[in-house]
Amino acid sequence: MAATASSYSITMRLHTDPDHGVVGAVATAIAQAGGVVTAIDVTDSSHQRLVVDVTCSAADAAHAQLLPEAAAAVDGVEVYRVSDRTFLLHIGGKIEVTSKVPLRTRDDLSMAYTPGVGRVSMALAENPDDIPRLTIKGNSVAVVTDGSAVLGLGNIGPGAALPVMEGKAALFKRFADIDAWPICLASQDTDEIVRAVEMIAPGFGGINLEDIAAPRCFEIERRLRASLDIPVFHDDQHGTAIVVLAALTNALRVVKKSLDSVRVVVSGGGAAGTAIVTLLIAAGVTDVVVVDRAGALSADDESLPPAHRELAAVTNPRRVTGDLRTVLAGADVFIGVSAPGVLKAEWISEMAPDAVVFALANPDPEVDPAEADKYAAVVASGRSDYPNQINNVLAFPGVFRGLLDARASEVTIDMLLRAAEAIALVVKDDELNPNFIIPTVFHPDVPKAVAAAIRGEG
Amino acid sequence: MAATASSYSITMRLHTDPDHGVVGAVATAIAQAGGVVTAIDVTDSSHQRLVVDVTCSAADAAHAQLLPEAAAAVDGVEVYRVSDRTFLLHIGGKIEVTSKVPLRTRDDLSMAYTPGVGRVSMALAENPDDIPRLTIKGNSVAVVTDGSAVLGLGNIGPGAALPVMEGKAALFKRFADIDAWPICLASQDTDEIVRAVEMIAPGFGGINLEDIAAPRCFEIERRLRASLDIPVFHDDQHGTAIVVLAALTNALRVVKKSLDSVRVVVSGGGAAGTAIVTLLIAAGVTDVVVVDRAGALSADDESLPPAHRELAAVTNPRRVTGDLRTVLAGADVFIGVSAPGVLKAEWISEMAPDAVVFALANPDPEVDPAEADKYAAVVASGRSDYPNQINNVLAFPGVFRGLLDARASEVTIDMLLRAAEAIALVVKDDELNPNFIIPTVFHPDVPKAVAAAIRGEG
Repeated sequence: MAATASSYSITMRLHTDPDHGVVGAVATAIAQAGGVVTAIDVTDSSHQRLVVDVTCSAADAAHAQLLPEAAAAVDGVEVYRVSDRTFLLHIGGKIEVTSKVPLRTRDDLSMAYTPGVGRVSMALAENPDDIPRLTIKGNSVAVVTDGSAVLGLGNIGPGAALPVMEGKAALFKRFADIDAWPICLASQDTDEIVRAVEMIAPGFGGINLEDIAAPRCFEIERRLRASLDIPVFHDDQHGTAIVVLAALTNALRVVKKSLDSVRVVVSGGGAAGTAIVTLLIAAGVTDVVVVDRAGALSADDESLPPAHRELAAVTNPRRVTGDLRTVLAGADVFIGVSAPGVLKAEWISEMAPDAVVFALANPDPEVDPAEADKYAAVVASGRSDYPNQINNVLAFPGVFRGLLDARASEVTIDMLLRAAEAIALVVKDDELNPNFIIPTVFHPDVPKAVAAAIRGEG
Repeated sequence: MAATASSYSITMRLHTDPDHGVVGAVATAIAQAGGVVTAIDVTDSSHQRLVVDVTCSAADAAHAQLLPEAAAAVDGVEVYRVSDRTFLLHIGGKIEVTSKVPLRTRDDLSMAYTPGVGRVSMALAENPDDIPRLTIKGNSVAVVTDGSAVLGLGNIGPGAALPVMEGKAALFKRFADIDAWPICLASQDTDEIVRAVEMIAPGFGGINLEDIAAPRCFEIERRLRASLDIPVFHDDQHGTAIVVLAALTNALRVVKKSLDSVRVVVSGGGAAGTAIVTLLIAAGVTDVVVVDRAGALSADDESLPPAHRELAAVTNPRRVTGDLRTVLAGADVFIGVSAPGVLKAEWISEMAPDAVVFALANPDPEVDPAEADKYAAVVASGRSDYPNQINNVLAFPGVFRGLLDARASEVTIDMLLRAAEAIALVVKDDELNPNFIIPTVFHPDVPKAVAAAIRGEG
C-alpha cells in the first residue's frame, strides 16, 4: 500500500452499538485496510447508540472507498455518511473579499464610500499615477485562465478551473500578502483572451496567466506584455523555469558540475519546457536538447510547427536526432515536463556519471523518483511525498511581491535569473545534499528573497 | 457655516511650545473657524516642544484648508503636516482577498491546492451544476464599470473609478456577506463591454453593473441578461428604483394617497429616471411624466432619441408639454434624478396639496431639502445630513444576497417590486412620519428582508 495523503482524507459518521470496544474495533479495521486514522470524535452518546466521526487518510480515491467498507464490516457498526475532507474544504469557495476599513457608522460610510470617495476619485482622475497607492491596484493580481490546460487534467473549462485559481489566490495571500482574484474566461480564442485581459487590467497591478494551453499561451503573453503597462507572467512557464533553474543550480553544486559545461535534455516542448530552455540558456547552459513525442527537436527539421522551430533554432547545437533514450546517452541532466512514464529508470545508467534527473510531470512523473534514485546522483519531482519537490509556490508569490513593490511594468529575463539564484541561495552550503537541493515552500525566507531579487536588491 | 462632515476630516500634526495652554488655544481657534475637533493626541512631549495630532471635521474641501491656517495663527504653534483622513483611509485600497481555509502545513496545501484540488476540478468538469456550491461562484459578484458616469463626477475613467467600486465591494461584504470584486474596464464601447463581461462571467454568481452612462447601459444590460445564466443588475437603475419606490410607498402612507391615483413628475430621463418610471408603472402608477432638459417627454415628439422615445411611449398619458414648472403644477410627487438646483422651492407650492419631493441628484440635490421642506409634506434626498436619505445601500446587498441564495439566473420586475415593499415594511406604522419614511442603512432587518423578498419568501 502506498503512503496515505491528506488530499484523500475522509470523515465517516458511524452509528455504533453503545460499546466502547466497537470504536476500537473500527480503528483496527481501518488500519488493517491500510488507512491512517487521524481523529475519532464521539459526537453523540446514548443508551441505544454512539455517533462517531472517524477521520482517516487513504492512499487514493479508490482506497478511500474501501475504508468505509472496512468500518461497516465491524459488528454493530453502520456507516451513516462519508464526507470527503477535500470536498468539505471547498464548500462555499476558498477565498473571500473583506473590508480593510471600518464600516460601522455613517461617518465610516461617508469616507469609504459616498461622498468622501468622490474626492479620492477626482484626485485620481487628475493624477493617475496615484492609482496604485490609493487603490487595490497596488497590491492586486488577476489570476487569469481559459481552463484549457488545468494541472494535468487538460481542457476542463473555466468553471471547473475555478478551484485551482482560488487555491492560487489563497497562496498569493498566504505567502506574499497579495490580493489575487481568479478570472476564468469563457473563451479559448487568443484574440478574445488578449482583449479581455487588456480590458480588465485597470483594476490590477499584475496579470498571472495560468493553465493556458501552448502554443496559444506564448502569443497571449507576448501581446499582453506589449500592450499593458503592468507586468504579465505566465506562471506555468516562468514560475516553473525559475524553480527548475534554482534546483538545477543546487544539484550541480552537489555533483560539482557547472551550468556552462553540462549537457541537458528537456523532455517536453510545451509551455514549461520552452520557458525552462530559454532561462537555462540565459543562465549559461550551452548544450540543451528538447525531445518531444517525435524525438529531438532540430533546426534541420523543417516540418516543425512554428513554436517548435523557434525552440529548435536556439537549442541542439550538435544537431542530434533520435528518441529520448538515444539523446539521453551521455547527458548530465534530464528535465521532464512531459508525460508519465516516458523515462525508463535503466536509461539513466546510460547518462553521464552523477546524472541529475528532474521528473516533473504532474501528478505522475516521467519516472518513479524512487526508481530513478537507484541510478541518478540527484532526483527531483513535482511530488510532495519525495525529497526535492519542484513547486511553483517557491517562485510566484515572491515574484509578484517584487513586481508590485517596484511598480514594475514588465518582467525581464534578468529578474527571472535573479529570482532563481535567490531561491538557490536559501539552501546554505552546510544544508545542501542530494535530498535537499531546494527549500521547502514554507521556508520563511523564500518569498522575501525572491521579491528582493525581482526588485534588484541584494 | 454648514454642518461639518467626516468625509472632510483632517488630522494636522502640530509642533507647539511645551505649554498646555497652547493646545487649548488651538482647539479654540479651530472651533472659532467653524471646525469640530474630534481628537487631540499629544504624541511626543519634551522640554523643547510638544508634538500634537489634532483631528477635526470641516464643512468642505475649502473649509478644510482654513483650519490649519487657524491653528498656525496661534502663538507658539507650527503646523508640521496636514493629513486628509479620507485619503489616509484609501492608502493601499479598501478591500483584500483572504483565505477561508488553513494553509499552515503541507497537508493543508495538498487539500486546498494540488493535488487535492484536482479531484474537485474533475468533479466540477463532470457536474458543472456543483460549481456554485464548491467555489466562490456561489457567493461572488463582479462590480463592473467602464468609469463613464461615476457618482456625480462624470466620465473619469476606469482607474479613477476604482475607489468607488472598492467601496461598493466593501459594502457588499458588510451588509450581505457577499464577496464582490471590482472589474474596471478599459473600454467604453458597448460591444466590447458586453463581450468582456460575458467572458469573465464563469467565475461570478452575479454581475452588478455600476456607473455606466446612459443610454449605453440599457443595451449592455439587455444583451448581458439575454446571454448570461447569472443575474445582471445595473444598480444605478434598479437599486435606485427599488429604494425610490419603497420611499414613495411610505411617503404616500404619510399623506394618505395611493400609487394609482397620484400624478408623478420625474426630472431626468437617464439610467435612474428610466428605471424609476418602469418600476413605478409596474407598481400601479398611471400618471407619470418625465421631464428632461428640453421639457416633458411626449409620444407626440418624434425628434426624441430612441431611449427617450421608449420612455415617452409608456408615460405622459395626458400628452402634456412644457418645462418642469409647467408640468409640476398640480402634481402630487416630484422625483428628481437630474441636476442640482433645477427645482425652485417656490414651485412646490403650485403642486397638489401634501406634495412629496424627492431631490436625489448627488452630491447637490435639485432643491435644497431644507427649503423644500417649507412647501412639501414629505421631502427626501440623497444626502446623509437630512432626514429620509434615499440610499442604494438599502437595496443592492439584499438584492444580490437573495439572487445568490436562490441561484437565480435572472432579475424580474416582480423581484424588484417585492424588494421595494420589503424595505417599506421595515418602517412600522408607529415609526412612520414625514421625517422617517425609509429605514437607515444600518437597520439590521433591511438586507435580510430584501433577500427574502427576492427569493420570493413572504
